[in-house]
Amino acid sequence: MGIKLHGYPLSPAARRVAACLEEKGLEYEFVLVDLSTGQQKKEPFISLNPFGQVPAFEDGDLKLFESRAITQYIARTYADKGTPLIPTDPKKAAIVSVWSEVESNRFDATASKLSFEIVAKPLFGMITDEGAVDLNAGKLAETLDIYESRLAESKYVGGEAFSLADLHHIPIIYNLFKTKIKALFDERPNVKAWAEDILARPAWQKVLESMKV
Amino acid sequence: MGIKLHGYPLSPAARRVAACLEEKGLEYEFVLVDLSTGQQKKEPFISLNPFGQVPAFEDGDLKLFESRAITQYIARTYADKGTPLIPTDPKKAAIVSVWSEVESNRFDATASKLSFEIVAKPLFGMITDEGAVDLNAGKLAETLDIYESRLAESKYVGGEAFSLADLHHIPIIYNLFKTKIKALFDERPNVKAWAEDILARPAWQKVLESMKV
Repeated sequence: MGIKLHGYPLSPAARRVAACLEEKGLEYEFVLVDLSTGQQKKEPFISLNPFGQVPAFEDGDLKLFESRAITQYIARTYADKGTPLIPTDPKKAAIVSVWSEVESNRFDATASKLSFEIVAKPLFGMITDEGAVDLNAGKLAETLDIYESRLAESKYVGGEAFSLADLHHIPIIYNLFKTKIKALFDERPNVKAWAEDILARPAWQKVLESMKV
Repeated sequence: MGIKLHGYPLSPAARRVAACLEEKGLEYEFVLVDLSTGQQKKEPFISLNPFGQVPAFEDGDLKLFESRAITQYIARTYADKGTPLIPTDPKKAAIVSVWSEVESNRFDATASKLSFEIVAKPLFGMITDEGAVDLNAGKLAETLDIYESRLAESKYVGGEAFSLADLHHIPIIYNLFKTKIKALFDERPNVKAWAEDILARPAWQKVLESMKV
């Protein structure tokens, strides 16, 4: 049976799970879901995720979707393999949980819109909405101001050690670093150092190597 | 020291944490953060949550924010008290985690906009944007179609037992049940039965009693 990751190589959410699997050093089979032909909205994929979005995940008879639920499962189930991604101390784990929520509700809410507008739309021949870019760049700048203060207190957002809270940011920061939005990171020294550190992780390099398109 | 919940009685996110504390039968002190005077954007609150939003939470020397991180902490730390909210079986816990992400990323993303437009705006003398209501009602209907299928398979969204994944929905559903959006729930028999079940929980009744304004 083993582990299967159903996704599309360019999907940030699929890459998030792949980065987690690589941090843990786990073998897995990548099953291509071709978004260009709408496979994600049809059977058999829709039985894995009724919302019709990649990624989906299988570990033996367990079937999951939602990238951040999948990474939590991997981090807990394979706690003793590879990089520890959730602290064993419950209070430290709670802080990682807080900053995982911040990533999802505050960072990703604006950053993924920017990535969609500036990176994804041109790939699909769509026109970037510059108003949406300006609006979300302003919101992202405010969020990164708070990250700048946070990263003055600890090396990583969830504490002194790299954790799921950092890992979840990687695919979207990677996309944004190819755009003018990189300046928002570069202007903030702690944020810049943190972003460069997490993008340089060997596990992420392996994801980029295996998910070339 | 003990447990402190910093919030505003009408805040759905503060009520989410209160519901979790009540399910666990935990004593706590409610510390009012007066949103009408902007206390959430100033010290001392801003030291608890740099993003300046309620709720924040203290348990002894541990300080947390983000409602869903707080409920996870409570559920894990006080696992043996009151209602079990995260299954002990890791695979069952992973399914709860999936549907907790669905609540946050799919349900709340539209439902909280509807609650804001229809419930919160009139309270603050603002005008409801009917276009935003129609748009989000359409999206919520699509999400509830998938809930209807899910709730044909299991009594609760995360499995056969009530869990955090259900609990997180309660405050926004409570708000929407006072509006025309209730029809979207009533039209779907499994969704209707589930929503009525979780709203009737004694822990939620206690929250409503203690958070009267």
